[in-house]
Formats: sequence, C-alpha cells, structure tokens
Amino acid sequence: MDNRTETAAVDTDRLPGTYRRATIIGGGVIGISWAGLFLAHGMDVVVSDPRPDVEKLVLDGLEEVVEGLAGLGLPTEGLADRLRFEADLATAVADADVVQENGPERLEVKQEIWRTVERAAPAHALLATSTSGIPATAIAQAMRQPERLVVGHPFNPPHLVPLVEIVPGERTSRATVEQARDFYTALGKQPQILHKEIPGFVANRLQSALFREAVHLVAEGVVTEQELDDIVTDSIGLRWAVAGPFRTFHLGGGPGGLPHFIEHLGRAMEATWPSLGSPAFDETTVARLTEQARQAFGDVPVGELAARRDRAQVALMRVLGDGHDPGTPAPTRD
Amino acid sequence: MDNRTETAAVDTDRLPGTYRRATIIGGGVIGISWAGLFLAHGMDVVVSDPRPDVEKLVLDGLEEVVEGLAGLGLPTEGLADRLRFEADLATAVADADVVQENGPERLEVKQEIWRTVERAAPAHALLATSTSGIPATAIAQAMRQPERLVVGHPFNPPHLVPLVEIVPGERTSRATVEQARDFYTALGKQPQILHKEIPGFVANRLQSALFREAVHLVAEGVVTEQELDDIVTDSIGLRWAVAGPFRTFHLGGGPGGLPHFIEHLGRAMEATWPSLGSPAFDETTVARLTEQARQAFGDVPVGELAARRDRAQVALMRVLGDGHDPGTPAPTRD
Repeated sequence: MDNRTETAAVDTDRLPGTYRRATIIGGGVIGISWAGLFLAHGMDVVVSDPRPDVEKLVLDGLEEVVEGLAGLGLPTEGLADRLRFEADLATAVADADVVQENGPERLEVKQEIWRTVERAAPAHALLATSTSGIPATAIAQAMRQPERLVVGHPFNPPHLVPLVEIVPGERTSRATVEQARDFYTALGKQPQILHKEIPGFVANRLQSALFREAVHLVAEGVVTEQELDDIVTDSIGLRWAVAGPFRTFHLGGGPGGLPHFIEHLGRAMEATWPSLGSPAFDETTVARLTEQARQAFGDVPVGELAARRDRAQVALMRVLGDGHDPGTPAPTRD
Repeated sequence: MDNRTETAAVDTDRLPGTYRRATIIGGGVIGISWAGLFLAHGMDVVVSDPRPDVEKLVLDGLEEVVEGLAGLGLPTEGLADRLRFEADLATAVADADVVQENGPERLEVKQEIWRTVERAAPAHALLATSTSGIPATAIAQAMRQPERLVVGHPFNPPHLVPLVEIVPGERTSRATVEQARDFYTALGKQPQILHKEIPGFVANRLQSALFREAVHLVAEGVVTEQELDDIVTDSIGLRWAVAGPFRTFHLGGGPGGLPHFIEHLGRAMEATWPSLGSPAFDETTVARLTEQARQAFGDVPVGELAARRDRAQVALMRVLGDGHDPGTPAPTRD
C-alpha cells in the first residue's frame, strides 16, 4: 500500500481470501472497535461474550465508531447486517478465519479461552490476543499448539489509531507472525513486530514514562493538567506526529546527526535523568489530579470529548498519509 | 486571536505599537528562526553576534526558514530589507523594543550579556532569554533590575512550533511576564507561563523522560530506532498532537474520567514505573544508536530531512488550528 489515504479506501480484495470471517471474543470497547473495523472491510463478524446485554452494548457501540470509520473513507452502510452474536465460545469460532480476543486481563481467564479456541477453530485461523500486558508465552503455556498464538495489541481505539504491536511468544511460529502482519496491514493498520517480549510492550512503556513525569510536574505545582496538555500538543505532540524521537534528535544534531546530538546534548540529558520525578498516586496527588480534571474537562461529557478528539485525529491522519519519512511518498514496508 | 490559521495571516497591527524593533542576540539556529518570525511579522530586526561570518550565516539561514513562514501564511518578501547587523551589544540594543537572547548556555556568559543589555536598552524593552536550562533567577543575580528579565524558551524551531515556555525568575515582575505573554501571543505563538522554575522546564523534561525509555528499548533490542519512531508516530504522537496525556487518560477512564482511570489503570501503571529503563550512553549503546541512525536516516542529508519534517509540520498545523479542545472553535485564551 502506498499511503494511509489509499489504504482507507475499502478494498476487500486486498484481504487475503482466507480472511472472510472473524470472531471477536469480548464485546467491550476494544472488541467493538475491532468489530467495526473488520465489518467495514467487508468481513463477517461473530461477537462472543457471555453477557446477556452484549447485543445492545455492541450495536450501540458500533454507532459510535461509524463516524471515525467513515472519516477514514471506509463504507459504513449496513455494517450490522454481517454481525452475529454467539455466546458459546466453541461454536463462535468454529468457522473463523481470524480470532481476535479481548477478554479480561487475567492470565487464567485467557488461558481457558485459548484452550477452548484452539480445539474449536479451523486449523488455518489466525489466533491473536489484544492483551496489553500478558505475554503470549504465558497464555500459550496451556495450549497444545502454542505456535499459533500471537499478541496483536492495538492502541485504543483500534479502528482509528494505526499501530498494532505484534508480539510473538517464545514458541510463536514465524508463519503466525507473518500471517498477523499481513492481516493487519490489509486492514490499513501499521503493524510493528517486536523482537522481544517485554512487559507493557513499547507504546505503553513510552507513554507511561512520559506520564510519570507529567504527574510529577503537576503534583509539584509547576503546571496544571490543562497547561501541561497544552504544552504537549503545542510542542512534542506536534513533533512526534510527524517524526519520532530518534529522528527528531537526529535532526537536532545538525549535519552530524544523532551521533553529534548524543555527544553534545545527549550526555547532558543523561546527567539529568536521575532528577526526573518519582511521583505516587497518594491521597494529595489524586485529589489534585481529580480537581484539576474537573476544572479542565468537567464541563463536557467524556463521550463528547472523545468524539471531538477522534474527529481531530481523523483530520490529522488524512493529512499525514503514511506518516513515515514525512514529505516523501511512503516506502513499501515489506 | 481565534485560531492559529487566523493568527498566521500577518497582522502587524496586532503587535502592540511598542514592539517594532527587535534585537536578536546570537545568530545561531535559534536566533535565525526568531529573526525570521519577527521579520515576517513586520518588525525591524538587529542581529548582534561577534562572529565575523554572521551576516552570511544568518542570510543563508533565513532562506531556509522562509518556506515554513510562508506555509503559515506569513509574508516573506524582502525580509532581509529590515535586517541589520551590529556586533557591539550596547549599540545593538539601544533602540530595541524587544531583546531576545540566544547566547551560549553558560551562566557567566549570559550574566555578562544581560549586565550590558540592561544598561543600554530602553526602559520599556521586553528582555527575554531563550535559555533551555539556566533559570532567570541565576542570570538576573548580576542585574540591577532583575524584575525585567524572563525566560522565553521556544521549542525548536521557534518560527514553526507554537510553544514558548515563559519562566519567571524569583524576582521577575508580573508586568514583565504579562509583557512576554502578550508579545509572543501577538506573534501567533502559544505561550505557557510556568508557576515554578525547574531545571529543563516542562516540555524538555517530558521529552527527556520518554527518550530515556526509548534508548532503553533500543539498547535492549526490543525494537530498532526506526521501528520505535514508527510506533510513536503511529500511536502516541498522533494522539498527543490532538489531546495531551491528561486528556487522553481522562477519556481512557470512560464516563468516570481521570479519577476512574487513576483508580483502575493508573495504580497498575504506577506499579510498573520502577521497572522502566535506566540506560546510559555507554560505548555499546552509542555504537548501536549510531549504526541504526545510519541505517534509518543515513541516505538523506539532515537538512533535507528537516525540510521534509517541517513541511509535514506545517500541513498538520493548518489542519489542527488552535489544537486545544479538539473539534471545537478554539477559545480566546486571555
């Protein structure tokens, strides 16, 4: 694919013929978002969730993701026509080409789910878990075919944000990893295959590192939450939407690039790392964060704020195209 | 001003009548970028730098910032007509309405500069230092009128990135702070006034915290530099360009907002903070970073990469408008 805009135009022919039927395990926020994306790409989708009210939850949730999908250029007419519900897990996956699991983040629950799925799903099906924190190695310990399971961790919401972190477990096969990469790429995502399992994977660790310092600066009274958010959107957010941190500092090094940066500024930065903050969510800090959140965001319901954010996100994605190596046609990535 | 696009249309009438003549101390990258911005807003600019080749450096540099200024909708015809050079510092600031200092990041050099400037500049002039690391309190210790000096720290490059961190020293007057805020706002920037002096200020501390973990993940072989950069632009960069970290997690908390997020996910995140990385720029790490930078960025000169990045940046800023509270008309900020 050449760029994100082009990807966004639906082209179900790009989905390998084997990916026609998806089963989504778990009808929560992440499951709904995946379901919307899969449906908009022409797949048939079964949602499996034991909650009695799952149909209403998912159908209501689908309505909320439709605007974003349409913004990406995907067709959104009659999505629910290709959506079914099946509480029984083994029945739900019996015809699946893809199983994307979004169950509770508890090891024993996921192990139980996958023990059932690997017995009931077709041999060719891609088996992926959306887990944000449990390694495939641990989940697959209970499986007879651990080579079939891979982490396909989206960044919320999956139907909008391009990243999917593909994290193989120790016994995941290369074929499964490539299957996952091809599938997510065909859906217009930007999958990244991690070379090692690490708690939190990459995006959330980076986010967590920055947020830790953000909490410190607000707790210390240097800025308010609203001021810190504005500082981020007006500087590093804007920057990192078009060039990641290494590219940014490569350019910061002038003609000498990153090596020059490290020698002249990086070492000075390293010297300051021990003085970054170590905040805690103690009573005082939580009270301050809560009060400032009320002041900054309290006037508008969260759902409306999220819709505004997603609208801005879509507008930005349309401008950025592929986003890699800004200003030039995106390279073919495989 | 209503939004960034409108601000970008030149309107020198918005610059208070007192801000017609600026003196830029230091003709390096930051000084050149400020000079371009000031000139494009109709100001007369004097650059003061003792280097014998400063004229050529600044004129060449101006040509490189012109594209970005034009992209923001500013007029760029004949900018150099209103540009002069004056190596003698006292003479250079004698008629200034604004002095923006971008000298070397050494306390004694800055103290010497400001001792001279406060004697020679008009009493009404705004006195601001671009320092990224030295508190105004320390610089002003050598001044007779410490209430006049304030930090006006831009995020590189100043002519493009909206943020200016205004950091008052212990003795900076409220009037000086307001003068700085009004001046940068009139230039179309998004100034933020910090409530406390802290080493590195806010944006660079946040950037440093994330970069520390980025170096750790590359040093550990979890991802390459290029992969990490792509992960950032495809997830958190895209996010933080439209919604800062607190707003993001407020939305992540669902209807319960940030308090719900802290209680249910924040405490789990806090538990992982001690396991974030503590890398060092040792020989092995520097060698790895250097080699990966060569692979990722080595084919294109840094100047060309920077031009591409800046082009993408301008395109994104045009879409985002003010950027605060995405999706709604930007509020008047004062």
